[in-house]
Amino acid sequence: MKLLRVGPAGAERPALLDQDGTLRDLSALVDDIDGSLLADASALDRIRGAAAAGVLPALDATGLRVGPPVARIGKVVCIGLNYHGHAAETGQAAPAEPVVFLKAADTVVGPDDTVLVPRGSVKTDWEVELAIVIGRTARYLETDEEALAHVAGYAVAHDVSEREWQIERCGTWDKGKNCETFNPLGPWLVTADEVPDPQDLGLKLWVNGELKQDGHTSDQIFPVAEVVRYVSRFMTLYPGDIINTGTPAGVAMGQPEPKPYLRPGDVVELEVEGLGRQRQELKGA
Amino acid sequence: MKLLRVGPAGAERPALLDQDGTLRDLSALVDDIDGSLLADASALDRIRGAAAAGVLPALDATGLRVGPPVARIGKVVCIGLNYHGHAAETGQAAPAEPVVFLKAADTVVGPDDTVLVPRGSVKTDWEVELAIVIGRTARYLETDEEALAHVAGYAVAHDVSEREWQIERCGTWDKGKNCETFNPLGPWLVTADEVPDPQDLGLKLWVNGELKQDGHTSDQIFPVAEVVRYVSRFMTLYPGDIINTGTPAGVAMGQPEPKPYLRPGDVVELEVEGLGRQRQELKGA
Repeated sequence: MKLLRVGPAGAERPALLDQDGTLRDLSALVDDIDGSLLADASALDRIRGAAAAGVLPALDATGLRVGPPVARIGKVVCIGLNYHGHAAETGQAAPAEPVVFLKAADTVVGPDDTVLVPRGSVKTDWEVELAIVIGRTARYLETDEEALAHVAGYAVAHDVSEREWQIERCGTWDKGKNCETFNPLGPWLVTADEVPDPQDLGLKLWVNGELKQDGHTSDQIFPVAEVVRYVSRFMTLYPGDIINTGTPAGVAMGQPEPKPYLRPGDVVELEVEGLGRQRQELKGA
Repeated sequence: MKLLRVGPAGAERPALLDQDGTLRDLSALVDDIDGSLLADASALDRIRGAAAAGVLPALDATGLRVGPPVARIGKVVCIGLNYHGHAAETGQAAPAEPVVFLKAADTVVGPDDTVLVPRGSVKTDWEVELAIVIGRTARYLETDEEALAHVAGYAVAHDVSEREWQIERCGTWDKGKNCETFNPLGPWLVTADEVPDPQDLGLKLWVNGELKQDGHTSDQIFPVAEVVRYVSRFMTLYPGDIINTGTPAGVAMGQPEPKPYLRPGDVVELEVEGLGRQRQELKGA
């Protein structure tokens, strides 16, 4: 299923995009799409049943804003340098184990919402990523099978990054990763049963119409199952938590000087195969 | 005012510790103590008025668990190496600007809850800290006065840390800071009007009755006002967000070998002057 949330920011309603591409209202069936829904197999089955029975009312998509596909996200865990190509373009060796950092959930916005270039920023960069949405509480997982059983689904994430603040301003990467609007998510949460192989997905990102990233999850150093298993040893993952699994080559930081960092007025579009497409205009904060 | 939340985890009720040390029930007055309450000056005034009028019912504190004093925390921002003494004991120079990292809000537990030594951990360490509780949305603050006006109050925080995972396991500090139960908070949120000078507070921590940390916020490299102002340039702070302002000297990592890292069975007690005292037993995860 493709689950999504539509409407004004903070007042989204739950919806489903059916196999014919029609938007269906879920608000009579569930309150919202959040961790507690994702952990509730019978509620998901009710949605599936109603969709199959054709009883869900259609929604007019015209002019409807799409919000992030998950409400009340607890945390966004990010994996750094997780593509061979991206590690190479940043001049770094492939890490021996996953590099982990955090984004606050309040950085998450809808897939087509405005992204703000922070005041004083000169190195705002793009990163298309495959996001994992957690469906069951995960602690100390031991096998890849267990790990995949804790995944509710997948989505497109844009892990916007301020490189000066991430790298040159003392301390951890978090300083350049947590600016407001820095994590567009969606448009959909595609349930895991419809993504048979998360290591077989193309990822693309364009800036002002020019293709900048053209990667594939087969280039991931640590695949999805290993990432979930690994992270669960260091922190507990809860339903509705997100894991951004890293970006392929092609970010601004990896280009020759002058590096084409994002500026107000730029338009970024990105997609992950089967998971939909995002489009953001950049504005000043 | 000293605001707190008492009762079973996930079902705490709001309370006030009055000037006579009597616990008063606030649940007829407010739903909970969270960001929306802290941002609502008139609701806080109602509590203040009811306390002054002596109309709040007393609660029997016997056997009552104390939870974290803020519900629905969005994020926990942490400042690293923020005391001259602690920077020195870790062999590092005082940072040129604040070192920032994040803890997920799901690491927050009550002040006397069990702290779990993660599986496989050999370097679980303690850190007593002064925590700031944010009361108003803070973006791009310019002055210290503005910064302090965005502080709802203060609390004791225990920034539990796994040093091997923080430092020796690739990537950012977050890997050693986000284990479950790693951020006891409370017992109280003391409103800012009752903390006239946050740079004049003693901090102490004991392990199994032995004093390990005995610091003072006057040793902070970046004081509270500067920390809030600085962080607001890199991320938006929301009501109910927490900032852990760093730990003074005396952590296990700073001791001679064999360093006395925490093990199941150990008892940690900590206090910040005027903000109350915590006591945690360590257990295996």
